[in-house]
Amino acid sequence: MADPARLSLNTITLREQWTLAQCIEGCARHGIPGISPWRDKLAEMGVAAAARHIRDAGLRVSGLCRGGMFTSAGAIEDNRRAIDEAAALGADCLVMVCGGLAPGSKDLAGARQRVEDGLAEILPQARAAGVVLALEPLHPMTCADRSVLSTTAQALALAERLGDGVGLALDVYHIWWDPQLAESVARAGRRIAAFHVCDWLVPTQDLVLDRGMMGDGAIDVPGIRALVDGADYAGMIEVEIMSARDWWRRDADEVVQVMKERFAAAA
Amino acid sequence: MADPARLSLNTITLREQWTLAQCIEGCARHGIPGISPWRDKLAEMGVAAAARHIRDAGLRVSGLCRGGMFTSAGAIEDNRRAIDEAAALGADCLVMVCGGLAPGSKDLAGARQRVEDGLAEILPQARAAGVVLALEPLHPMTCADRSVLSTTAQALALAERLGDGVGLALDVYHIWWDPQLAESVARAGRRIAAFHVCDWLVPTQDLVLDRGMMGDGAIDVPGIRALVDGADYAGMIEVEIMSARDWWRRDADEVVQVMKERFAAAA
Repeated sequence: MADPARLSLNTITLREQWTLAQCIEGCARHGIPGISPWRDKLAEMGVAAAARHIRDAGLRVSGLCRGGMFTSAGAIEDNRRAIDEAAALGADCLVMVCGGLAPGSKDLAGARQRVEDGLAEILPQARAAGVVLALEPLHPMTCADRSVLSTTAQALALAERLGDGVGLALDVYHIWWDPQLAESVARAGRRIAAFHVCDWLVPTQDLVLDRGMMGDGAIDVPGIRALVDGADYAGMIEVEIMSARDWWRRDADEVVQVMKERFAAAA
Repeated sequence: MADPARLSLNTITLREQWTLAQCIEGCARHGIPGISPWRDKLAEMGVAAAARHIRDAGLRVSGLCRGGMFTSAGAIEDNRRAIDEAAALGADCLVMVCGGLAPGSKDLAGARQRVEDGLAEILPQARAAGVVLALEPLHPMTCADRSVLSTTAQALALAERLGDGVGLALDVYHIWWDPQLAESVARAGRRIAAFHVCDWLVPTQDLVLDRGMMGDGAIDVPGIRALVDGADYAGMIEVEIMSARDWWRRDADEVVQVMKERFAAAA
């Protein structure tokens, strides 16, 4: 069972129910030690107020979601703001969802290059701010519109080319199917900067918004956690569930309660 | 542009419109030289009648869809029948969709082993019948319920372990996102026994039944064809489109006409 001291609430899990202020208060009330805000909720509350409330509640910020999207217009400026926000929150990392193909393009190699160039451009600022850029390989089904970074090995190779200050954000949802997973996670070692859990539902009804709670799907979450722990990752474990048909429709306190139970029993 | 002499109609492209007899007649009428039947349509028509009609129409059978599903009950017997059918049709290969996790299981390593064991069990019969088993790596989004074989490199390694009589069926839909694609296809070389084309729609609305026509999506189909041709594949190129919301709702002759045009212009 996963150690409850490592549990962090990714706020998208309660996107439809709670503001960031409510998430902070809810974590404190339910004894959840970590939080990972999405930037839309952070903007709503204001960065300074959020940082103060999170500190006052004694929560650790396991990550800020998200930077990246380098194949979209205005990405560099937006990423610079995201780095400032992550620094203000004292986040363990800024999670990077790197972007898919440019709109209308089929140039996959070009998109990958734009991602690498964009990361290189913002990296000096991230290093200066002490913000780790955590590259998140996303499930291949998101390659066209969200992330041309598709596997752990690919993300690790990119992180190694970029050097210091670049880590990985590993989410079981995105990586569980990978035949090279065990060897890639082992090689990633101390580059692992974030670890996210949820589950893969059978059948999955939507490519983005149909994630399951740990234990309800096909992923051997404890097995992957063992790989990540075995690579010397000792940080927090975020629960990140986008679920338009189920968890977003439930009472928030019920979701948090089930999340705690499943974190102990099925993560 | 792809050579029209290599065009083959995978019958699932017209699943809702035409029987196998109609597909055979339609290919002949539209000057399409190849056909790849699915086994449900083949059973409807009867194997002997289908073989005779296909031969009389002068069509080449680029493949039979499909064997595999080794993690389901009764798989071995069903695969033995599929091999007999492929032999009766003189098919270039039997396409193998190898199966996902066993129902309710999270044991991915175990499922992969069952696939390998099942293939090894039926391989002597396939060799004796002269039927190439074409392992199809399926998109990782199908890992739980359709195929634990997810990448070209993984399928190739399995084919190499199994030895003679085992090839690969490569479908752009399943492999286009892969950062190791170029090197894997090059290494696959003469193991490539089938090549399928269609396109990835943005956004994709269903994990199985929302494929696009070549040119309508995000895949650089000619680029991948060049990789496959560069690996010395000179066989037929099947158009395989499951499309519940679009192509299955159109007039069959219109679909065939568009397919021919796009094969020339966007494949």
